[in-house]
Amino acid sequence: MSDFVKKYGPWALIVGASEGLGLSFAKNCAARGLNVALTARRGEVLAAAARDIRAQYGVATREVIVDAGALDFVETVQAGTAGLEVGFLIFNAAAEPGGPFLKIKLADHMHNIRVNCIAPTQLVYWLGAEMCERGRGGIVLVSSTGAYSGIANWASYGAAKSYELILGEGLWDEFRDHGVLATSYLVGATATPTFKRIQRKLGLPFAAEHLDPADFPPGTALPRTAEEVAAALFAQLEGGPRLYCHPDEEAAFKEASNANRREWIARRGEMTKTFYNGGLNQLDG
Amino acid sequence: MSDFVKKYGPWALIVGASEGLGLSFAKNCAARGLNVALTARRGEVLAAAARDIRAQYGVATREVIVDAGALDFVETVQAGTAGLEVGFLIFNAAAEPGGPFLKIKLADHMHNIRVNCIAPTQLVYWLGAEMCERGRGGIVLVSSTGAYSGIANWASYGAAKSYELILGEGLWDEFRDHGVLATSYLVGATATPTFKRIQRKLGLPFAAEHLDPADFPPGTALPRTAEEVAAALFAQLEGGPRLYCHPDEEAAFKEASNANRREWIARRGEMTKTFYNGGLNQLDG
Repeated sequence: MSDFVKKYGPWALIVGASEGLGLSFAKNCAARGLNVALTARRGEVLAAAARDIRAQYGVATREVIVDAGALDFVETVQAGTAGLEVGFLIFNAAAEPGGPFLKIKLADHMHNIRVNCIAPTQLVYWLGAEMCERGRGGIVLVSSTGAYSGIANWASYGAAKSYELILGEGLWDEFRDHGVLATSYLVGATATPTFKRIQRKLGLPFAAEHLDPADFPPGTALPRTAEEVAAALFAQLEGGPRLYCHPDEEAAFKEASNANRREWIARRGEMTKTFYNGGLNQLDG
Repeated sequence: MSDFVKKYGPWALIVGASEGLGLSFAKNCAARGLNVALTARRGEVLAAAARDIRAQYGVATREVIVDAGALDFVETVQAGTAGLEVGFLIFNAAAEPGGPFLKIKLADHMHNIRVNCIAPTQLVYWLGAEMCERGRGGIVLVSSTGAYSGIANWASYGAAKSYELILGEGLWDEFRDHGVLATSYLVGATATPTFKRIQRKLGLPFAAEHLDPADFPPGTALPRTAEEVAAALFAQLEGGPRLYCHPDEEAAFKEASNANRREWIARRGEMTKTFYNGGLNQLDG
């Protein structure tokens, strides 16, 4: 049995795992010998992901069809993983309401809080207690560089990702006394299927299936691939309390934190206001 | 009519206003000629605060008895302020679950999210829309220096205050296009009645009614008074997207952001683990 399995096995639970980054996280777990329990909303995509992982890595899989924003989310996950010893959790699910705050439905702002705040809190409360009792285990809360500062058109999304970031850091300090690793993972733009859907919807340039730097103006930072971002987590896993998907993202955090906040937020907002076609002015229409 | 009343009148709504910082915020509004709607959980304390403000400033008051963590919080505030034109909102209510994450009841972690995330989101969605339609108004989300990084024993509290911080910054950029001021306000240790109750409960030194630097070791940073912290908000109100109650707190943010995160969080955690008598080890008992 590998050290990784001894520390974090026998089962990993990856929340939001049917494609993109979550699927890459799951494959990284399976490649290290963990069985993987996967959650997602879409049963068919999830079943295909599980089949793929079983075929490629020979580990056991469990599928839990659930929306991380559902009121009975945790109960559904508990029922779906009954009997499994979960030693590793990656909370990767995310809601991402985009657009002017007042044009987004209030229900979507509440869904954002359920997915990005309530669901991870409930999960780490349940699994964190089991891991601390066992004296081993790992928890990763996937946050976003959108948490670095407020940002127009992602005001509630950035806020909720900041909740996850700070929660993971605090748990790092508490749980390590029990031999349990908890950490936040800061992820920037990643060329996942969700990312490409949003890009297409907004008419933005990163929608293509395969991105080639030659197709973009010189100096354009391309989104990283899901495979790169997942691999970067495992390469530095125990270096918490917060991990960055790339050193550039750590530099960006420091830049945001040392900048004149007014100028920084205005500049970030300019970008999103271009995407969202004039932003709040739509309210007047 | 003063410029302040033209911009932010005729009514201010202060959520969490019966004592301490909220009461000081309300007095600052009243001193500038705004009528004040006050919310708090305890009706008698709230009535006394409102009487005090009417007598001292001659403005009108409205009292709304409500828990910011109640499921019908916004509906109760809407009913209680029906017919009032609210041009200024200070969201000051806070839940502050303290102690090892796994020893706090899950219900208290959820209450924390309701008070510090859901309630302000619902309020700014409602009042922000009204203000943006009017093209004037002000919104202040009171956050905490506990949002600067994760912190043991306040893991979910710090996370939720970070939500408020980042939400306020994002709204600053969106709402200013409509002539509405939104901002976050970062408050450090303040000698409010709540602060003193917590200090007493934990056997900490800042419980006395009147703090005198002579009673403490040299170099001890005393908590600021509620009056100081409230006055500092109004002295810099339009300087958002985030305001600090004192320049020292801005310096602390930069220190936290530039520090080795592992060392910073471990050091902050040491302090809280002393308070909470060994922290997570209680779980073993």
